[in-house]
Amino acid sequence: MAGNSFGTLYKLSSFGESHGTAIGGVIDGCPPGVEINISDIQAELDRRKPGQSAIVTQRKEADEVQLLSGVFEGKTTGTPIGFAIFNTNQKSADYSHIKDSYRPSHADYVYDKKYGNRDYRGGGRSSARETAARVVAGAIAKQFLKPMSIQAYVSQVGDIELNKNYKDMDLSLISSNDVRCPDPEIAAQMEQHIKEIKKQGDTIGGVIDCVIKNVPVGLGEPVFDKLHAQLGKAMLSINAVKGFEYGSGFKGVRMKGSEHNDSYFTDGTTQTNFSGGIQGGISNGMDIYFRVAFKPVATILQPYETIDKSGNKVQTKGKGRHDPCVVPRAVPIVEAMAAMVMADALLFQKTLQ
Amino acid sequence: MAGNSFGTLYKLSSFGESHGTAIGGVIDGCPPGVEINISDIQAELDRRKPGQSAIVTQRKEADEVQLLSGVFEGKTTGTPIGFAIFNTNQKSADYSHIKDSYRPSHADYVYDKKYGNRDYRGGGRSSARETAARVVAGAIAKQFLKPMSIQAYVSQVGDIELNKNYKDMDLSLISSNDVRCPDPEIAAQMEQHIKEIKKQGDTIGGVIDCVIKNVPVGLGEPVFDKLHAQLGKAMLSINAVKGFEYGSGFKGVRMKGSEHNDSYFTDGTTQTNFSGGIQGGISNGMDIYFRVAFKPVATILQPYETIDKSGNKVQTKGKGRHDPCVVPRAVPIVEAMAAMVMADALLFQKTLQ
Amino acid sequence: MAGNSFGTLYKLSSFGESHGTAIGGVIDGCPPGVEINISDIQAELDRRKPGQSAIVTQRKEADEVQLLSGVFEGKTTGTPIGFAIFNTNQKSADYSHIKDSYRPSHADYVYDKKYGNRDYRGGGRSSARETAARVVAGAIAKQFLKPMSIQAYVSQVGDIELNKNYKDMDLSLISSNDVRCPDPEIAAQMEQHIKEIKKQGDTIGGVIDCVIKNVPVGLGEPVFDKLHAQLGKAMLSINAVKGFEYGSGFKGVRMKGSEHNDSYFTDGTTQTNFSGGIQGGISNGMDIYFRVAFKPVATILQPYETIDKSGNKVQTKGKGRHDPCVVPRAVPIVEAMAAMVMADALLFQKTLQ
Amino acid sequence: MAGNSFGTLYKLSSFGESHGTAIGGVIDGCPPGVEINISDIQAELDRRKPGQSAIVTQRKEADEVQLLSGVFEGKTTGTPIGFAIFNTNQKSADYSHIKDSYRPSHADYVYDKKYGNRDYRGGGRSSARETAARVVAGAIAKQFLKPMSIQAYVSQVGDIELNKNYKDMDLSLISSNDVRCPDPEIAAQMEQHIKEIKKQGDTIGGVIDCVIKNVPVGLGEPVFDKLHAQLGKAMLSINAVKGFEYGSGFKGVRMKGSEHNDSYFTDGTTQTNFSGGIQGGISNGMDIYFRVAFKPVATILQPYETIDKSGNKVQTKGKGRHDPCVVPRAVPIVEAMAAMVMADALLFQKTLQ
Repeated sequence: MAGNSFGTLYKLSSFGESHGTAIGGVIDGCPPGVEINISDIQAELDRRKPGQSAIVTQRKEADEVQLLSGVFEGKTTGTPIGFAIFNTNQKSADYSHIKDSYRPSHADYVYDKKYGNRDYRGGGRSSARETAARVVAGAIAKQFLKPMSIQAYVSQVGDIELNKNYKDMDLSLISSNDVRCPDPEIAAQMEQHIKEIKKQGDTIGGVIDCVIKNVPVGLGEPVFDKLHAQLGKAMLSINAVKGFEYGSGFKGVRMKGSEHNDSYFTDGTTQTNFSGGIQGGISNGMDIYFRVAFKPVATILQPYETIDKSGNKVQTKGKGRHDPCVVPRAVPIVEAMAAMVMADALLFQKTLQ
Repeated sequence: MAGNSFGTLYKLSSFGESHGTAIGGVIDGCPPGVEINISDIQAELDRRKPGQSAIVTQRKEADEVQLLSGVFEGKTTGTPIGFAIFNTNQKSADYSHIKDSYRPSHADYVYDKKYGNRDYRGGGRSSARETAARVVAGAIAKQFLKPMSIQAYVSQVGDIELNKNYKDMDLSLISSNDVRCPDPEIAAQMEQHIKEIKKQGDTIGGVIDCVIKNVPVGLGEPVFDKLHAQLGKAMLSINAVKGFEYGSGFKGVRMKGSEHNDSYFTDGTTQTNFSGGIQGGISNGMDIYFRVAFKPVATILQPYETIDKSGNKVQTKGKGRHDPCVVPRAVPIVEAMAAMVMADALLFQKTLQ
Repeated sequence: MAGNSFGTLYKLSSFGESHGTAIGGVIDGCPPGVEINISDIQAELDRRKPGQSAIVTQRKEADEVQLLSGVFEGKTTGTPIGFAIFNTNQKSADYSHIKDSYRPSHADYVYDKKYGNRDYRGGGRSSARETAARVVAGAIAKQFLKPMSIQAYVSQVGDIELNKNYKDMDLSLISSNDVRCPDPEIAAQMEQHIKEIKKQGDTIGGVIDCVIKNVPVGLGEPVFDKLHAQLGKAMLSINAVKGFEYGSGFKGVRMKGSEHNDSYFTDGTTQTNFSGGIQGGISNGMDIYFRVAFKPVATILQPYETIDKSGNKVQTKGKGRHDPCVVPRAVPIVEAMAAMVMADALLFQKTLQ
Repeated sequence: MAGNSFGTLYKLSSFGESHGTAIGGVIDGCPPGVEINISDIQAELDRRKPGQSAIVTQRKEADEVQLLSGVFEGKTTGTPIGFAIFNTNQKSADYSHIKDSYRPSHADYVYDKKYGNRDYRGGGRSSARETAARVVAGAIAKQFLKPMSIQAYVSQVGDIELNKNYKDMDLSLISSNDVRCPDPEIAAQMEQHIKEIKKQGDTIGGVIDCVIKNVPVGLGEPVFDKLHAQLGKAMLSINAVKGFEYGSGFKGVRMKGSEHNDSYFTDGTTQTNFSGGIQGGISNGMDIYFRVAFKPVATILQPYETIDKSGNKVQTKGKGRHDPCVVPRAVPIVEAMAAMVMADALLFQKTLQ
């Protein structure tokens, strides 16, 4: 098991280190007959890839995906979809300084303690580069899920918050700016803030909101595999995520039952949606929405003190090309993980029919 | 699969409806040689059971657990531990009013849509009564995990917040009051608030904090099964949970990397612990801590309007004996789920040794 | 995991020792709306239970099953079906002689080595009593699978072989004799042979054949989870089984491709069925048939020499009430395991539709 | 799930069609620190590859494996090992004749019925080419399992049987001939027979025996995941396999318990080994041995009649380069599957320690 597979019926098993030969994976369980447009998958990868704008890492990685199996004459065959993204632009020398020391709040220390050794180049398996495989699997899930739609956007960067309900915004504007925030004015402030943080050689956290529309009633399993529990695990498995809430979330704590309960219209839809589209772990047909908190990236381009393998103090400084804020590039990752969860739930629901 | 199993190597498969013959489960993977004191398990169940204090539901359920297998001469044998809690005090007549109508923000509607039928008595499988099986499995996991300690407490009820770090309180005081809050003064305010809410026939939300101490370095799998992702899923699978955060959580979003990074002491411990004891999904030996948000209970003892199976509006009113606030009784459930996650992680780690 | 669950979508998690409080299990994934007649389940258990005829063990066990959840108003609800069979007639004293010694070809030695301790009474978890839980889960699967039919029968006892194709016999005669062989003449010889063996205080092996009819085309997964691989694992997991073959089996080895290939009729059925109803791991709509080899029961009522925990030689003798030949009582177990495999495959196939 | 993963703790997820871009897989759960010599893996692949001798298919496939991740500085890191074998010598035109018709006893018909479409080139996913991924995963498992040894050999081709116990032969002679039979005289007869069968444009079945030595006591889980049940499933999942038996197997059926029981020496080893090294599903430290039956290859180079997609009769004839007998090339596949089963069992056993 070892934690490199996600999903049960729609399942991704991924592999790959930041500076190894390739990253990739196997998608098992994608139903046959789904039309696959490779350029749609590549478009999702391009939203994640480094170097796409001034506010993300300036590494240049092509992130070009090759499908190796499972698609024939433009459609899935029901057999596993193997894929690989070959690594092409690693500068492993950038990482020789961390070979023997542990960067604070990275996985260096715990990998060494857990496994006894590690591929230290670029963070190895703990690198966020791993998420490219998730984006591929999510892009294919999105094709299968149509007409369900999954849209994520940045709602907070540091102290700059977007205090608007998704229903009061034009979500098509998400792609109109580099931050991926649907409010152009707030987006500009966020962008400005990220640039300042970057200038300081520092990093900053953020929040991503996600909305899933056109969800059929009945998805999700009722006890341990509640739909929001699966979404929560999916999100918390993304690098740098520190929190997850759905529907009323942490704010719902302050409400009374009489305020929080979602009354029904006669067609089964609800007048409010504090439930976030999920009741008792099962989708009720209303929009699903949730929020994901990301910490500031651990790699800062400032001098700092840390320890080496022998427990000696060492003075060092972050090098290389890194993101000052992870949320703009994490938007497609959040969508991809949500898509995999929904695909799995949809396949489970078919077993009841 | 169908979502009634939790864990991989330490695995609970549970069963049971609120008003059926019994609830219970099978625990598979508990190692041999663990000393099992049935009274320790019963003590955990008693912390969860209804009727234990003035601020919880006044239903009287004995919740007496019977171990059916897997323990011989006081120790686990490595074979599965079957157990059952027979239901003894159901008042199914209390629920005839919901047979054909859907309570708002309950699982009635979605169960009917998902399965085509449901055991409507007491919420059936969607009842929080199901969590008793979790408490049994968690109590056994706690025995196995020693000397690791897992302590949860109530940190918020409605607007009343406990704004203190767990390190600045005496956690032995958690059991000194009915709310299970380690600060007696705040506890009294919370208790007072719950009583007022109850008098209104209303309900209120709350937050539970949990701290895990004496955790070995190296637990957790690095990609999809990150330790905090498993903890998050575990918590989000508990009835009424709306959010989860660990370490710096949603507040960490506002911090800079230079503030948030946890610098090492020379022994590998860290000077701060914004990471919440987990880096890259793997425990680093520091305390693990997280927070869980619970919504207000959906069943309110006030008149309300809803719909029936045919989509007609109906006027109704909550009946029966319900909790005005779920968090005091949810404390042992949070601990139980955390214990199962840690037991699973510990067993996985053994495969590397 | 620890091996006490079987199946993925139709999943049994079982528990229980021979002389513990109860045996039982949890069936997760049985679809909602399946009519459950408890007397049909009990009837299957009665076919397995001890004491039913002169050629099986004379232990008297009621083997009365109690359903604890998951069935409401005579139908499954889609929630897990918990069940228990309480142990009532254990004579644990019969087993004090094996507490410290290892019976040859039993699991005593390996249990002690694997787990460090064991519940020695009646073989504990390694007792064939465990198979009663399988029969319950299989009986429910049979209800779900209708109109698919699964029929097993005894085709060999020691050297006495039934050399007939299942198509040339009246399978309704299986239940007409104690051996469960559809040929009355051969059945009489087998019965006579078992009685002689019993008189010697010895035991004898046997073979069970099984036929599955009315199978839809398309069940089974093509690579590692081929339908016959799942059937094979299911059968090999039954106590005392030493071999499995399907279709042409070991005899097919001697054939040429030109003889072995099953030519199609124009409707997709085949003129011969050496494939045993499965091609490339997937059912082709023809009858599935397979054979299962059982070794002679290890417990013999003769004096023998063995070793104790300290490696000393001990002289001992089998006691208690045991089967001289396992196959008559194993017929319903073979059917039950086959039913679970087919139920799982049917649910998987639904995910493609 | 969909059946393209094998194993739980040592898990292969494989992908790839015969005539697609590549085949390959992801191995998750291989412990860190295992020395990996790529030439050892390639050597195993070379034993499986086409064109290696006069008695196998004359297709020329390089079958060159590329490791894409998980190995750093010559050792496994504990992260998933991704690998690919790019397809280089497909002659897809050879298969245009089967695009619209169904070859008897192949998977063509059932794939079309199950999935609605298929990659017909070279059998697509149902091609035995898929087994190359198994050989890679098995070769790595072998490194991890040392000093356990796994040796398979051909014991029957058609009617030519090797009636010798593995203990009475020199197993180092297995590699001395093209058939992979440790008795040179019988090997020569088998080779001669395969050549004659090939000349007829026909095919023939065979049996492979396998012996596993130096097995620790205690491997295997006691109920559904008995060690021999896992081995049986593993073998039955290999293309063309029709039967599996271990220890005394089908012959043990004829024995009495008094003959079949394996008496202990005082050190816990046994005087005979009818148990085949496994008791109650758990290894007892004696050699594990089992037999695997393979049917004759379905593709024959003779004219035959079959049906097309519309149910019309068509006259056709096998083309391309095929194996007259599958067993010589299946020897490394049997070993590979056995190695994966043993690796999984070994990792499970670690969780008890």
